[in-house]
Amino acid sequence: MLRAFPTAVIENLQPLVDNGRYPIKRVVGEDLVVEADVFKDGHDVVAAVLKWRRLGEAPWHETAMTHLGNDRWRGVCSLYENAIYEYTVEAWTDVFAGWQHEFAAKFEAGIANLQSETLEGAALLDEAAERAGDSADAHRLRELAESIRASDHAQVDAIAHRGELEVLMSTYSNRSNATQYAPPPQVIVDRVEARTAAWYEFFPRSAEGRGDQGSTFRDCLARVEDAKAMGFNVIYFPPIHPIGFANRKGRNNSVTGDEGEPGVPYAIGNRHIGAPNGGGHKDVEPSLGTLEDFDWLQREIRARGLEIALDFAINCSPDHPYVAEHPEWFYQRPDGTIKYAENPPKKYEDIYPLNFHCANWQELWEEMTSIILFWAERGVRTFRVDNPHTKPVPFWQYLITRVRDRFPDIIFLSEAFTKPKMMKTLAKAGFSESYTYFTWRESKHELTDYFTELTQTEMREYFRGNLWPNTPDILPLHLQEGGRPAFMIRAVLATTLSSVYGIYSGFELCENAALPSREEYLDSEKYQWKERDWDAPGNIKDWITRLNRIRRENRALHLYDNLRFYSADNENILVYGKMTLARDNIILVVVNLDAFLVQSSFIHLPLPEFGLSESEAYQVHDLLTDARYTWHGSRNYVELDPSTQPAHIFRVRRPLGDGRFA
Amino acid sequence: MLRAFPTAVIENLQPLVDNGRYPIKRVVGEDLVVEADVFKDGHDVVAAVLKWRRLGEAPWHETAMTHLGNDRWRGVCSLYENAIYEYTVEAWTDVFAGWQHEFAAKFEAGIANLQSETLEGAALLDEAAERAGDSADAHRLRELAESIRASDHAQVDAIAHRGELEVLMSTYSNRSNATQYAPPPQVIVDRVEARTAAWYEFFPRSAEGRGDQGSTFRDCLARVEDAKAMGFNVIYFPPIHPIGFANRKGRNNSVTGDEGEPGVPYAIGNRHIGAPNGGGHKDVEPSLGTLEDFDWLQREIRARGLEIALDFAINCSPDHPYVAEHPEWFYQRPDGTIKYAENPPKKYEDIYPLNFHCANWQELWEEMTSIILFWAERGVRTFRVDNPHTKPVPFWQYLITRVRDRFPDIIFLSEAFTKPKMMKTLAKAGFSESYTYFTWRESKHELTDYFTELTQTEMREYFRGNLWPNTPDILPLHLQEGGRPAFMIRAVLATTLSSVYGIYSGFELCENAALPSREEYLDSEKYQWKERDWDAPGNIKDWITRLNRIRRENRALHLYDNLRFYSADNENILVYGKMTLARDNIILVVVNLDAFLVQSSFIHLPLPEFGLSESEAYQVHDLLTDARYTWHGSRNYVELDPSTQPAHIFRVRRPLGDGRFA
Repeated sequence: MLRAFPTAVIENLQPLVDNGRYPIKRVVGEDLVVEADVFKDGHDVVAAVLKWRRLGEAPWHETAMTHLGNDRWRGVCSLYENAIYEYTVEAWTDVFAGWQHEFAAKFEAGIANLQSETLEGAALLDEAAERAGDSADAHRLRELAESIRASDHAQVDAIAHRGELEVLMSTYSNRSNATQYAPPPQVIVDRVEARTAAWYEFFPRSAEGRGDQGSTFRDCLARVEDAKAMGFNVIYFPPIHPIGFANRKGRNNSVTGDEGEPGVPYAIGNRHIGAPNGGGHKDVEPSLGTLEDFDWLQREIRARGLEIALDFAINCSPDHPYVAEHPEWFYQRPDGTIKYAENPPKKYEDIYPLNFHCANWQELWEEMTSIILFWAERGVRTFRVDNPHTKPVPFWQYLITRVRDRFPDIIFLSEAFTKPKMMKTLAKAGFSESYTYFTWRESKHELTDYFTELTQTEMREYFRGNLWPNTPDILPLHLQEGGRPAFMIRAVLATTLSSVYGIYSGFELCENAALPSREEYLDSEKYQWKERDWDAPGNIKDWITRLNRIRRENRALHLYDNLRFYSADNENILVYGKMTLARDNIILVVVNLDAFLVQSSFIHLPLPEFGLSESEAYQVHDLLTDARYTWHGSRNYVELDPSTQPAHIFRVRRPLGDGRFA
Repeated sequence: MLRAFPTAVIENLQPLVDNGRYPIKRVVGEDLVVEADVFKDGHDVVAAVLKWRRLGEAPWHETAMTHLGNDRWRGVCSLYENAIYEYTVEAWTDVFAGWQHEFAAKFEAGIANLQSETLEGAALLDEAAERAGDSADAHRLRELAESIRASDHAQVDAIAHRGELEVLMSTYSNRSNATQYAPPPQVIVDRVEARTAAWYEFFPRSAEGRGDQGSTFRDCLARVEDAKAMGFNVIYFPPIHPIGFANRKGRNNSVTGDEGEPGVPYAIGNRHIGAPNGGGHKDVEPSLGTLEDFDWLQREIRARGLEIALDFAINCSPDHPYVAEHPEWFYQRPDGTIKYAENPPKKYEDIYPLNFHCANWQELWEEMTSIILFWAERGVRTFRVDNPHTKPVPFWQYLITRVRDRFPDIIFLSEAFTKPKMMKTLAKAGFSESYTYFTWRESKHELTDYFTELTQTEMREYFRGNLWPNTPDILPLHLQEGGRPAFMIRAVLATTLSSVYGIYSGFELCENAALPSREEYLDSEKYQWKERDWDAPGNIKDWITRLNRIRRENRALHLYDNLRFYSADNENILVYGKMTLARDNIILVVVNLDAFLVQSSFIHLPLPEFGLSESEAYQVHDLLTDARYTWHGSRNYVELDPSTQPAHIFRVRRPLGDGRFA
């Protein structure tokens, strides 16, 4: 037999990822806007609230939702803690409002005898007084009930609509038959850097730019200072762990390195060097220094207002201590030897892949988790994860959940350059940010389509695209061919299309020497020490500094899903904007995507969306050059020379009415 | 600690209603096509099956799914029983296929020593033999393992790809780490009439068309025969229960009826007439006959291959036995009297609404359910439910679930003319069919938009639109104004836009006398006996008979979501088609929506979709007139005169190559 039943229907709740199967993501201080269809049978009046709370904690907070029309309701709350929350919608029959409407309708229709209706209304107040317990409100409700009973119809109708009574009746509403949307979806609230950071990646051994020997942690501060001056706030290091001796590779990925070559940081683990923790993922490469040196560097970086991001690459060199201690974690041949990585017929003899499905997989997963916890205990709060798509998705769910339990401020960046569905699934499974296809999106059409998908579809709820114009593995063709203007163009796109981005060092120097017909760097520092002048002529450090300053100073650029594309007549001119909800910060970006030729175009802006009228002049203030232009109407002319200034980043300024602009 | 983990990701399973919150619907014998994204980490090969079973019954049936590309998989099963099924997708790592690919890649690359790989493959066969237990298959697998061990690389590669071995390895695959999509969504499999019936509604008291007295159940056979001759298969009666005396209404809804007037069948219940079951919903109005007369009529109807549909209207007249026995089920005034229905300032004093939220609601719900079960036990299997949107949705879920448990062949039609979200929710909650807005959709634009929503969006999975050009409550303006041609046009639309439809009697006579400026019938038989000649001149019985025959003889018209709209240059010409999946029955409907003027147009057909070439002639055979036209190419001319033939219903006939057509 049924015991109780809900009165209202609540459907199509938004936002929601896969109907609540996965959490949505927000950052601290962000609003959560929730909408739902709410309705019930018959003509009853419905009331609805948005409820939210930290996961597992009582009680719920709540705020009234408002009816938008066509049974659609909306409520807004703000999430102030770096934690996981749950949220839901509750709805019930608002009996008092129903009575108000009925009484008013009959009264206005001139029905003479409303005695019965009057008594019904008074009874509702008495019931609310019961729910109010022994309080001043209960007393007041009973008083009002009495005065309703003693009043004529006109007075009853007036009392019924008093604000005081409406507040009391809504405070002590009868929710015994309330419906609650279940199960409540979850929202991961990350610290704000998950949405706004600017990453700078460098190999610590390259800090000084010497070709004859590697730098140490103690040599890294100049590079950190430089990154800070350019406006970056995350210093990301490729793996810093001991590098194996066995099958160590040499320059340009040659399979046999010469004696004394530094090796590839991704061939992790060397049990032969006497490191304190066995020489695996919980130690540092001795040529970089000691764990204490690392701690020192991390403190110095923190003191400058930046933070370190480490690379979590689950790669084991044949010298990794796991190989000796846990051969059962690896893939074994019938003869008992351990298999190296292969992509037949290619062989990667310096890497042994771990078998996440081995008999002892629980122990292995635990150990992997302990690596993150080890570095987290030393203060690291950001991890870039190498190739997560080659490990089981449930493993990542397990690891990230475990780690977040202790360190909710940890940020995980997924480096999955793979098929779209796997990239999305990793983000759903818990990665805070993700690498994207931005690196290869060049044309107006490609950029518009891709970023519309990222920021305007369900993806925006769980997938934060962190944009990289280059990485140690990828020097895209447009940078190889387009030279300095191409680097400037890609820097503008990376810093403004998303709210979070990064560059791999050398980008600011416009380094673009590639292996022939490949997307890879020539003489990549993955395989060698590299000589560099970090202030080499032709660098774009000043351009990047200006871009980061513009990002920092304009709140519209701190947001992710507020990107909108606008139209330009020329296929080489890309126009897009970002603005705050209050429209007090409106940024308009105009980019010449052609790295070789001057391009000009009429562009078309939706002035009403900006809160501007077609008839009034407004100002566009180029934050890159500080030039200001007065524009009229939605159609305006731009011309951009890639060799000098391939882009405008305008702040749109509203007329103040006295000839000046906001 | 984790105990086990799935290896594959299964997402975006389709079909699904609200992500599995509600069941989808199919009919007996229909295919269920299921698609899902299936993928896993790394380079492993994935295998997937579609599984299904009757709810609660073991074991699962299964069939292999095929990879469509981009990680999308598809599987198909057929549902043969009138029951509720559940379905899901299971996926796992196909280790053997992975080994096949790896071995082949290395062999083709000419790698000299594949001894280790050979042993790995043989071991996989031995493991499969273990899973095969003590069987001939196990023996054969061990034999093949032996011959792999004894073979050279070329032979191993050949054995690995033998069909025999592939079948054995897939039969005994290792699914210990399989992922199953959970929870399994459900599918309600209705009997086929839920999708294909043609309903004919008449008031049994009007069977003989006499103005001076009502007909009885024993007088209904001529009307049934006539409906059968027109091709209908459901005879739907408005309420047949005792009609109350209190506040009985008269002709044209007058609030005070004259002595001897028959009353409104929707004012149900009369405890003063000495009926066997108290005079409520489990009795029949004495002027129609007895329960035995009803049983006789039902048998006669069944014997003719038709069935009865009853109207379930939860309305109580003040004379209903519930009012005396269960006053607590109704809304009471403070003075203890029972409230009649109101929509202030309007009053409906002949109806007492039930309070589904009353203290004794469980008893009330149980009693309502017992009404359906009472008639089901007497053989009724189809119910049209009056105004379900004014009762709680959970009540319908409860009632329909309870009833289906005992009578899975029962069909419920929801008569909810209300806001879209409530109409959809009632269908999700379990109604087999639903009234629609078709009654008011007139223009090409309106019809195209609405039927695209019904048949091409998620709605098609759960909402079966039963189309009614008229009802006792609705005589739409286009029928009032358009006369006989309008009735012919609406008949064509109702019979071909959906696979299930109905008419309210009088439609075939083109009755269109309305109350002034209203959508209601003048002298509606809801309130009175009505004189009628069921063969009145100008009737369109022959037109309807032809339409029903065409529906019956063409399988494309038995399907619901195969509707596709095509283009015509003239806004008054609507063109659409329906075809079977095998394209062996292609129906093309061309309708002149203008009831007054001859309209002509070029129309444009997507010949490749029909399997026709642009260069070859094909035949369109008008099933209404038997005329045949030879057409060439996608663009053809039509001209339709509403006074003689407002529509073509073509069967598209393929050229057979010998000058004849299929």
